[in-house]
Amino acid sequence: MLRRFTVEVETQGNCALVDLTPHIERRLADAPGVIDRGGVLHCFVVGSTAALSTVEYEPGLVGHDIKAALERIAPEAGRYEHEATWNDDNGHSHVRAAFIGPDLSIPYEAGGKLMCGRWQQVVLIDLDTRPRRRTVICTILG
Amino acid sequence: MLRRFTVEVETQGNCALVDLTPHIERRLADAPGVIDRGGVLHCFVVGSTAALSTVEYEPGLVGHDIKAALERIAPEAGRYEHEATWNDDNGHSHVRAAFIGPDLSIPYEAGGKLMCGRWQQVVLIDLDTRPRRRTVICTILG
Amino acid sequence: MLRRFTVEVETQGNCALVDLTPHIERRLADAPGVIDRGGVLHCFVVGSTAALSTVEYEPGLVGHDIKAALERIAPEAGRYEHEATWNDDNGHSHVRAAFIGPDLSIPYEAGGKLMCGRWQQVVLIDLDTRPRRRTVICTILG
Repeated sequence: MLRRFTVEVETQGNCALVDLTPHIERRLADAPGVIDRGGVLHCFVVGSTAALSTVEYEPGLVGHDIKAALERIAPEAGRYEHEATWNDDNGHSHVRAAFIGPDLSIPYEAGGKLMCGRWQQVVLIDLDTRPRRRTVICTILG
Repeated sequence: MLRRFTVEVETQGNCALVDLTPHIERRLADAPGVIDRGGVLHCFVVGSTAALSTVEYEPGLVGHDIKAALERIAPEAGRYEHEATWNDDNGHSHVRAAFIGPDLSIPYEAGGKLMCGRWQQVVLIDLDTRPRRRTVICTILG
Repeated sequence: MLRRFTVEVETQGNCALVDLTPHIERRLADAPGVIDRGGVLHCFVVGSTAALSTVEYEPGLVGHDIKAALERIAPEAGRYEHEATWNDDNGHSHVRAAFIGPDLSIPYEAGGKLMCGRWQQVVLIDLDTRPRRRTVICTILG
């Protein structure tokens, strides 16, 4: 039996960070077999302008610091061939998403609690330049 | 039964991006059990100067934008102790590969289609300074 | 049966890289079932100021080059709202850890040898500003 669920979230784009932890833990606790046994949850965000990672979900990092560092790697106002080719504005979004990556796997205890640190939340980072609805595919492993 | 296969690709190095999606999907569709049931495919590139991620595989990002951003993180002409120690030229290659990472896991449907977005391909990024033959070890999970 | 073990390491912080490979392989070789059959080992570092990746574990990269590149992404002396909010000094640590990521999965052979390249070691990168004791949760998959 494949145990899979999806989490859908609305974002504002532009480096919006969404704390997925409560969404994931609610669904995980209800999944068959999780009550008795721990495992690993694999998460994957569909699309090439979003990414998954963990971060301390507090306003300074979420609202400023992550975005400021992403500007150093791939500035919004930089020159992108992607934008020239497609008459688009999100070249930096694609580059940033490719570097952070779309997948994340997290160990969990029997009952479905994720084994993150106390100040370590699972986040979706939406790097696109407009609001988006995002789908995260979660598959139970182990 | 462990279900594992390897994908081998030739690259030109120097930030060459190779679209692994068709290679992986062909092999995955033929793997035992995949026809009836979805899962997660774990991919790992052997070696410390290559990385795996997803990207929209179009010429602007593939030929220019990814490379330009990697230059900001670890410039090819920068000073690297790695190069001084080993009389080598690929210090930047190692640093870039460590940041992006060698592993990627992707959910797939019964039949073996990867559940990426329409404009989201699985890529190997070869960060070394010369052509290489790369081995990606793929293991079926879930 | 869930097969899980933890690896604990002491670090000096400040971009200290710890080679986890021997620690992991020792524990993996003793885990039930590994003698007969390969799989994938999922590793996750608890906490939001450390990360996992692979790198050639040699003094130039470990002692200088990785740290120099991290300074370009998130300089230690930069301005961080995280630090202003919490009267803290490790805003750069959080940003760097979020970009590299807390998880890594590695294929292994029957017997427990990791299928990394010859010059590719599994590393914990401690990005905090002080010595830390780190816990890596390892779960056997596949």
